[in-house]
Order: sequence, then structure tokens, then C-alpha cells
Amino acid sequence: MIVVMKPNASESEVESVIERLFAAGCDVHRSTGSARVTLGAVGVTAAMDLSDYEILPGVEHVVRVSTPYELVSRSYKPESTEIDLGSVVIGGDDVVVIAGPGLVESEELIHGAARAVAAAGAHILRGSAFTSRARPYAFRGHGEGSLEWLRAAADEHHLLVASEVMAPAHVELVARHADILIVGARNMQNSVLLTELGTVGKPVLLKRSPAATIEDWLLSAEYVAAAGNERIILCEQGIRTFESSTRYTMDLSAIPVLRQLSHLPVVADPSFGTGVRDKVAPMARAAVAAGADGLLIEVHQNADEALSDAAQSLYPEAFQQLMDQLRIIVPAVGRSI
Amino acid sequence: MIVVMKPNASESEVESVIERLFAAGCDVHRSTGSARVTLGAVGVTAAMDLSDYEILPGVEHVVRVSTPYELVSRSYKPESTEIDLGSVVIGGDDVVVIAGPGLVESEELIHGAARAVAAAGAHILRGSAFTSRARPYAFRGHGEGSLEWLRAAADEHHLLVASEVMAPAHVELVARHADILIVGARNMQNSVLLTELGTVGKPVLLKRSPAATIEDWLLSAEYVAAAGNERIILCEQGIRTFESSTRYTMDLSAIPVLRQLSHLPVVADPSFGTGVRDKVAPMARAAVAAGADGLLIEVHQNADEALSDAAQSLYPEAFQQLMDQLRIIVPAVGRSI
Amino acid sequence: MIVVMKPNASESEVESVIERLFAAGCDVHRSTGSARVTLGAVGVTAAMDLSDYEILPGVEHVVRVSTPYELVSRSYKPESTEIDLGSVVIGGDDVVVIAGPGLVESEELIHGAARAVAAAGAHILRGSAFTSRARPYAFRGHGEGSLEWLRAAADEHHLLVASEVMAPAHVELVARHADILIVGARNMQNSVLLTELGTVGKPVLLKRSPAATIEDWLLSAEYVAAAGNERIILCEQGIRTFESSTRYTMDLSAIPVLRQLSHLPVVADPSFGTGVRDKVAPMARAAVAAGADGLLIEVHQNADEALSDAAQSLYPEAFQQLMDQLRIIVPAVGRSI
Amino acid sequence: MIVVMKPNASESEVESVIERLFAAGCDVHRSTGSARVTLGAVGVTAAMDLSDYEILPGVEHVVRVSTPYELVSRSYKPESTEIDLGSVVIGGDDVVVIAGPGLVESEELIHGAARAVAAAGAHILRGSAFTSRARPYAFRGHGEGSLEWLRAAADEHHLLVASEVMAPAHVELVARHADILIVGARNMQNSVLLTELGTVGKPVLLKRSPAATIEDWLLSAEYVAAAGNERIILCEQGIRTFESSTRYTMDLSAIPVLRQLSHLPVVADPSFGTGVRDKVAPMARAAVAAGADGLLIEVHQNADEALSDAAQSLYPEAFQQLMDQLRIIVPAVGRSI
Repeated sequence: MIVVMKPNASESEVESVIERLFAAGCDVHRSTGSARVTLGAVGVTAAMDLSDYEILPGVEHVVRVSTPYELVSRSYKPESTEIDLGSVVIGGDDVVVIAGPGLVESEELIHGAARAVAAAGAHILRGSAFTSRARPYAFRGHGEGSLEWLRAAADEHHLLVASEVMAPAHVELVARHADILIVGARNMQNSVLLTELGTVGKPVLLKRSPAATIEDWLLSAEYVAAAGNERIILCEQGIRTFESSTRYTMDLSAIPVLRQLSHLPVVADPSFGTGVRDKVAPMARAAVAAGADGLLIEVHQNADEALSDAAQSLYPEAFQQLMDQLRIIVPAVGRSI
Repeated sequence: MIVVMKPNASESEVESVIERLFAAGCDVHRSTGSARVTLGAVGVTAAMDLSDYEILPGVEHVVRVSTPYELVSRSYKPESTEIDLGSVVIGGDDVVVIAGPGLVESEELIHGAARAVAAAGAHILRGSAFTSRARPYAFRGHGEGSLEWLRAAADEHHLLVASEVMAPAHVELVARHADILIVGARNMQNSVLLTELGTVGKPVLLKRSPAATIEDWLLSAEYVAAAGNERIILCEQGIRTFESSTRYTMDLSAIPVLRQLSHLPVVADPSFGTGVRDKVAPMARAAVAAGADGLLIEVHQNADEALSDAAQSLYPEAFQQLMDQLRIIVPAVGRSI
Repeated sequence: MIVVMKPNASESEVESVIERLFAAGCDVHRSTGSARVTLGAVGVTAAMDLSDYEILPGVEHVVRVSTPYELVSRSYKPESTEIDLGSVVIGGDDVVVIAGPGLVESEELIHGAARAVAAAGAHILRGSAFTSRARPYAFRGHGEGSLEWLRAAADEHHLLVASEVMAPAHVELVARHADILIVGARNMQNSVLLTELGTVGKPVLLKRSPAATIEDWLLSAEYVAAAGNERIILCEQGIRTFESSTRYTMDLSAIPVLRQLSHLPVVADPSFGTGVRDKVAPMARAAVAAGADGLLIEVHQNADEALSDAAQSLYPEAFQQLMDQLRIIVPAVGRSI
Repeated sequence: MIVVMKPNASESEVESVIERLFAAGCDVHRSTGSARVTLGAVGVTAAMDLSDYEILPGVEHVVRVSTPYELVSRSYKPESTEIDLGSVVIGGDDVVVIAGPGLVESEELIHGAARAVAAAGAHILRGSAFTSRARPYAFRGHGEGSLEWLRAAADEHHLLVASEVMAPAHVELVARHADILIVGARNMQNSVLLTELGTVGKPVLLKRSPAATIEDWLLSAEYVAAAGNERIILCEQGIRTFESSTRYTMDLSAIPVLRQLSHLPVVADPSFGTGVRDKVAPMARAAVAAGADGLLIEVHQNADEALSDAAQSLYPEAFQQLMDQLRIIVPAVGRSI
């Protein structure tokens, strides 16, 4: 941490800042220039809040040198994390595709979806038993029974299972049936839930909240890691901007940015990010071309009739076509699929 | 709902949309112009997702005529809601001031804070026993014991109590000690928590998430109302924008906008919204001048040493000065304080 | 245009709106529902400002059915515009690559750059004689002489030339030397310049301002088209968002969105959009995978020493590698390069 | 400037950065910590682009200590600038109100407007002869003749005159008739125009572009100041955010932020910022309560019929009422009106 003092800061103001830094356990290097004093603090911990120093008398601004997160940073662990799920490795050579309907609407639907996405080459079946909706009157899922249908459908087609957890009370239940636990954007900063997920033995797919900076997002991942679970997959799905022609604006440059800042794998969800069916394939191709480790794609046999997010679901034929396009693209980024 | 068909939509596409609207229980008025067909649907319910219609073949776009929320809208209840807490009414003639530290750090601190804010003219004491922090390593509160200290301190100085709930498991506990339950921005879309708050007999102060449009925010309030609790206070505290000189950008025009859209009272939290002590008073004055029904202000006797959000806490003297300025301003908006 | 009246609008308010619409030359269809009156206006022109109707007494809101731009819309001209420059067609089968330094720093530099980008397979040489800089003290170009160097370098390597115009006074001069005139983001809404560009016989590459919605951007293109020049290339280069890890957030979903709304070709500038060299190639690949008709890429033989935008310029080797990757990707979008 | 090297930066990388800094004329202080090397550069000029250093091998990030603007900064000139226009001082004790129609539509209109705003207590008459519109088909003003009407109307009612300049070619003409030259948001980064305004002997009111950070805005002011004119008034009128219930989101915290960063006076334009008539008065009151030195307010005798921006113009009665409310508020910020 570097503390830049104001040009006119008094000696007692400088000393008072140094004392606070000592009290917090830091070593301090003082550099006196012609215009101002600059203090370099060594030993800053992630528990220190830098804005507490920014308001001290005589301080102009404070600069963080180290990141506020640790366990999820690439400087903590230089090699990329690979999450090995047996039949598939997330963060390895293969671009991993997670596909299926938003909600598990019925046993018949999920079996059909499993068949279709497996035929097109997807690796993991998605489907939620519970979900969060913006409107309180919308359908929010069938709950436990649908997890059993989901597991059976996936097993029959040699797929793994990814499903959403919405509350601490669901974690154990969903973890019993799913291979990956999805945390939706609305819960990205639900710290009670994140802490609970630290103790479950399954990987967590953490979606980015539309208001989260990359730093906020990594701090949420740090919550899970600090609670004991370092098998985390980051999922970019758009940020809120003034452009309203798509639901959110997908921030694909987050993919190469995260590659530098963190060792965790990064996937993208263009279905949620765009909210419009005919924008899903272009943004799915773009995410893979930008270097994503995988994709989440909503697929529904009768997409127009889907009970949730109909507008963003692909029909199986369109999904098949997308998979064919991705097979062309992946060698450009040194991957297979 | 109005469905605008594409200029070249076929007759069978038009009929197919009409059938879907009938199936959803709507009456449909068809208007055929020289360029295109427009359909007006009557009987649209809040459970219908308009984007499901936007993707139907031949449809150009769909326009919502009614709002997606009902119970919290001003068209549902034209007169403004006043929340009567005995000694104070939120949404009445008085601008109501809720003040105190971010966290209840100790019994001594909260008694001192209660004394200071009561002396300056605040009506309600704030202080959290639990809180959500961006960083997992930050102090997150003392829990239950501190609720008792908070209640005792408030009672001694004839103040009411507002305190944060972070998880469904806390609701009953906090409701036992507090007069107003605060939902933080990170939980604004935690639907499990919102539903739980519908069943508690205490008013809920719902903070705006920095990524929430006004419509998103009112939909979250609708969750609480639909679950049975219509005593909701909306709290503006800034949205995330590209401007980084303050933590968030306070959207003060939301105050007059909400006045038109909703019957619920609106307050503002400039401490959280700006994140910087010397911006708090200007934005507090501005919020009241824009018509806010009240304010949340962080006050701490030894603000620089506060265990949370030190940078945004006012010293008691600055708070007293702000209250004096507010007394000058309120007649301009036809209020008292 | 559809005017939705308030539920309690009086008959005289409804009639007053109808009269205003008649006065503006529209036919009006009235639809009286159980809850409210809705008016459909036919014959709305692009010169009408819909917000003028939104404030009339009794009006709840006004919905535009047609777009506010005409000449650049796909409904005006359904087939995609191809801009034929002889050796290359923008908007045709080939993805067109425009590459070179930000500024033409010297005759030697631009010859070297032309050789390098031609060798890698670029089609058009970029280089500015004038440019706009955020800081008044930054180098702003050599002016006219450098246009001659640029033209000679391009001709020697069988490349076309794209160069920036910053003011109406430059238009004729730059048009004498360049094949494509670039309008930078800071001038996207400089209506005096846009109108001037309507009368020049060269295509205009119109960069998106970081605050422009897609509609704003198409309205700027409409300025050029309305003044007589329909050979316009739209260039996506990012919008301003809260995420600060890259200069702007590239809105790649704008590419498929524009494909629907407009007949104009769309290219992307990941050098300007990201501002950071190692994010350029991922975003260039992503833009092509999303369907862009071309790219602008800054290339500089000695990128670290460039007099402008050094941080975002690729070294020739990195550019060559990017071109090789793009050759792999283009068949996935049915293109060549 | 502080250059933070990567933990694993090699000695030759460190030395190479030091050499570049020397070459740019800086002194360098080197600090070697246990984890990494940090370099402090003294003598950084505003002409240096820090991102050029950020991409050098071994550099982790670069931190600016001084601001990139100089002449407009408060550290350059600690006392607040007062712009003395004879009958009124901008940045002095009085909150200055600039009011009138968007465009000077007719001689009759501007005389009526002058009478109305003078009666309510405004100090300066606004009205444009030229203006920039988003749509090419909209009315763009009467040009020179209307400047004479404007001047005559203002003189008759003892008002000063503020009017817009859109292009370098207009500057001399408008300066001949107006006391203050307004630069609209679309021209905030039109560097040719800004430079031209440095040589005119009249104060410049520089509106914030909706995509401009506070730093971008001050850099634009620096253009004018560097060209010779330090009489600049900054005008906050909103930034582009995801919230679409008002045209822009007014960033009122920019007012106290600018007070710290710059010595220039700051006014606000709630008419342009909100775009909706009934939000103008709340935001005007809020801006003054936040500490603004003045306001721009659109007033039109027959606001619904205004040829530009009808929806955001106040009727004279509403303007009178607003002035009465402001008279109540100003003592709270130690001002008169």
C-alpha cells in the first residue's frame, strides 16, 4: 500500500499516518520528495480497508499494491486450476459445454433435453430445481423431485449435472444430486450462502452479478475459497450498462483479464447475458474465441413454450449448429471440444 | 400489452400470436395499418413474461402498458403510504432521520452514539449486529448480544431502532429487537429473504442494489408485499456507474420518479452512496431538497477508528451541523424535521 | 407511434392529444379499453420528437413503433450494403483488416508499417495525420505532409488508406489522400462535421462514442446519409461502463444487433476498445466470431516507443499471429479473409 | 508517478524502466521491498502518458500521483475562481441562475422569456441561435439574426446573455453578442473548438459529456485554459447510466468532488439532465443544496409548443415557484440568490 500525502501535509499528519500503519502491523518506508511525502507500507493484509487511510488528515490518496483477494489470485497460485470431474476437466484442453433448459419443468422434458444436448456434444446437463426470478409471480421450479429426474436423465446420456443453489438450506440437497453447484447473479454477494458453499465437496460455478467489478467478483470467489472450497468456476454473463438492446452487455474482455488475475477457470453464459435467442450463438462463438474455458447454453426442445426464459433458449437444431461452429473455432485458441 | 408485428408478418403469424394471447387469458384488439398490424392485449397479468412474446415469429416488438409490479404501484394505491411507528411517521410531514454507527461495536459505543444522535435531533438509531462485507476477512458484527445493547441505548434516548437482516435465519431475532428491518443492497434480490420478510410484523427498509433499475427495485418490493407485508421503505443509495470519484453515483432523480410510480416512502443513504465523509452532508441536503422522506446517516463518535466503513462515518459535530442545515431546507419542500 | 393515456385521462385530454397528432399530419386510430384509451398514430415522421407528446396532460407514455432513423435502417433497405473499394469490398465475403500505427510519426515508420501489415495479410493501411487526444499536451500529428507519406507507403504495398478527419476544414484534404475517412468517437456527434461528410465522395468509418446507445449511433450515421453519403461503415469500439480493467467495455453483441437494425457494414476496433496490448488479439478474434465485417488494429514496429497509444499497439509478429488465428475462425461464420 | 514492478521482475526489466523515466526527464527513487521493487518518479509532466509505462516488461501497474491536468486544478490555484461579469459574479456569494428557452425561436418569444425570467429573479438569459440535435431532421436554430434579438431582449430586462457555440466558425459571431459561450455536451471533446475558445475574451460554460469522467471533463477544461482562457464554468448535466427513467443520471456528488479538485465554479443543468419537466425543480433544488454555484434552467412561455426540448422546459409560473424555493434553501449553504 502506498500512501500519497498532500503537498501541504504537516509533519504531525505524516507521523500520525505512520503510527496507524505500525499499529496495523506494517513496516513503512518513507520517501520525501520536493513536493510531497509518500509512504510505502509493507505487510498489508487483506483484512485492512484502504479507505480507512484515505480519510486521515493530510492524506491525498492511497494506492493498493497487492490485490484485496489472495487465495483466488494468480500470484498466490501461478498455475491454472483444472477442475477434474472424471469424464471432463474444466480448465483443461477441452472447451466444456454445459447445456439444457433453465428449469426442470417435467421428467419428459429433461430426458429429451439430455438426449438432444448429448447428441450435439455437450458435456454437462444443466437444469434448475429452484431459481430466482425478478418477478414474484413467475414460476420458480419444482424443487427436490426434479433433481432426481435431472440426475437420471444425465446418467442415461453420460452427462454430468449442474444445478442452481439459491439458499443455504438447499446446498446439501442440490449437492447430493449435482456435480456442479451454480450460484446465480442475484446471490453473488450472498455471503451466508457463499460461506456455506465452502464446506460442500462439489465445485461451485459463480456467476457474475451485473453490478460487480472483476474485483468484487473475485472477492466473492475468495469467500468460497476462504471457507474451504477452492474448486470455483467463474461465469461471465454480462454487466449492466446503458445499452438496452440486449439484457446485459457481455464483458468478454473479462476473460483475458481474469486469466492474468486469477488461476480459476472462466466460462460464459450468453443465454443469460443477451436474453435474446438470436444473439446467443454469436456471443457463444465470441466467448470461445476470446479464450473461455467453457459455455453455459440454454437449450429447450420447445423453446417458445419454456416456462422460464423462453426468449433466450435455443432449439436443439440451433444448438447443434453452434457446436459445429465451435469445432471450427477452437483450434484458433489451442483448444479442443 | 401491445404487440407490434413486423411490416412483412404473414397472416398466419398474426393469428398465431393472437392464439397465444387468448391462451393466456387476454382479450385482443387488432388494428391493421397500411404498414403493419398492431395487437392490443387486455387482461395481461403480472405473471406473464413479455419477452416470451417478443421472440414469436413475425413480432417486431412488444410494449408493456401496465407495470410488472402491482401492489407497490401508485395506480394500485393512489394515496401515499405513511408508516406509523408511534413516535414517528415515515412518509408523513416530518423528514425522518435514522442515524448511528454501521456496526454495533460495543455497548459503550452504541450508548454514546444514541446520546449524540438524539441530541442532534435524529429519530431512529441504526446499528447492525450482522452485516455483509465485500471482503471475507472484514469484521462482520457481534450478533445477538449487540441487538440488546442497541435496543437499550435507543430506549434510553427515546429513539426507535433500525437494524440489518442478512439471512432468513436472522429475521425473527432481529425483528424481536428492532422497529425497522434493513435489507442491504447485496440482498435486494435474495428472494428467499424477501419472502420471509413478508410474514414479519415490522416495516422493511429495502436498499437499492447498485445494478437495479427502478423497476427491478420495485419488483423486489413487490416480493415483500406479495408475501403479506406492505410496510416497505425504499432507500436510494446509489447506482454503479463509470464515475469512480465516489463509491456509487447517487440517483437522486429516483426520488421524484418513485413518487410517481409508487405509493411507498423513499429515503436516501448518502453515507453508503458516496463512501466518503465529506460528500455525505452535501448529498444529504440534496436528497432532502429533492423530496426524500428521510435519511440514513452513519455517525460514529470516533469515526476514524470505526471497525467498518470508517471513511463514510460522520463525527457527531458534523452530524449536528448537517441537522441544522436540514432545518433550513425542509420548508422549501413543505416539510418539517 | 402509440400513445397510452392514463387510466383517469379525461375525454378532453384524449381529444387534445388527437388534435395535436392531426396537426402533425398523422392519422389516428383510437382504441378504448376497460381501463384506458390507447391511440395509434400513423404517418409519424422522423422529424417528430416523441417526448413532446409524453408530457401532454393525460398521457402515460408514448411508444415509438418505427425507428427514429430511416436511410440507415434495414427496413428502408433490406439487402446489406457492400462498399466496393476496388481491391476490397467491405461488407462482402471477406473480413477486411485495416491495420497500421495510430499516428503517422515519420515517413520511415509508415513505410515499415505498410510492409509489415501487407505481409501479414491486411487490406488497408491506417494512420492519422491529425488526431484528437484527451490531454491538450499530447502529440497530435504532423498534418498534411504525413498524408502523402501514408499514400505512398500504401500504394507501394498495394494497400488502401484509411485516415482520420477531425474538423470540417480537414475533410477535403484528407479525402484527397485517403480511401476511407475515419470519424473518431469524440466527433461522433459533431453534427457540423457529419453534415460535411455527406458531400464527400469517400466512405466514412463512423466510430461509436463510448456514451452512445446503438440508436444514437445510427442517428449519427443518418446525419451523414441524409447529407448525401450512404457509404458508411460502423465501428464498434466499446462503451463506458463501471468496469475499469480495460479502457472501455467492448459491446460485441452490438454486431448481431446492428445486423438486424441496419444494412450498413460493422467493424470493430479492439485496440482502442481495450487500450491494452494483450487484450487486443482475444477481442479481435471474438469480434470476428461474433460476425464483424472487419477489424481496425493498431500495429507499430516499435510499439513501446509509439508517440500515441503505445500501450494498445501490436508488434508486427503479434499481428501476424492474430491474422493466422483469424484464418482458422472465419469459416465458422461463413467468411474468408 | 509510482511504478510497481511485478514480484518476479528481473533486474534488467527494472533498469529498463528507470532508463525510460530518465529519458523522459524524471528523477527516480527506487525502493526494494521483500516482495517487489517500487519506483517513484519525480518530474512527471502532463505530456507523459502513463499507460506507456504500464505495458513495459516487468511492470505490474503504474499509479499517477499528480493529476493529468494542471491549470484548472486546485493545487495549481488554491483560491476559488470568481468570474466577474459586472452585474453578477459566478462563483461568488450569489447562486447565479441562467434561464430561458432552448432555442431563440422568434423575436417575440425571446422578449417574453426575458421578461418572465427577469421577473422571477434570474440573472442571465439563455437562448441558442445554433444547436446540436441527435436527429438530423430536427430544427437547429435561426442563426445570426436570433443573436441580435437575444441581446436586445436581455438588455431591456438588465440580464446578461449565454448562448451556445457549436463550431469554430461560430465562435467570433456568438462572442460578439453573448457574455458567456456555452459548449454543449456533444462538443466537450471537440478539441478544435476548445482550442479556439482559448483565444476569445469571454467566459466559457463547459457542459459535461454523458460519458465523461470528472477527469476527462477537467482535461477538456485544461484545453481551453492551456489555449489562454481561464474563465471556465463547469456545468454538470448528468451521465449515461443504465437507469432510463430520466434522460441521464445527474451526478450531484460531482459538485463537492470538483470543489476539491478544481478552483473553477460549477453549475448544474437539470433541464437537460433529467429531460422531464416535473423532475427539473427537485433536481434544481438538490443541486443548489449540494453546493452548486448556479443553475441553467429551460423556461418557455408555451412550453408544450417549444420547437426543441419541449418536454424539459418549465412554464414561467413553475420557474417562479422554483426561485421561491431556492431562496429558502440558499442560507443552508451560506449563499444568497
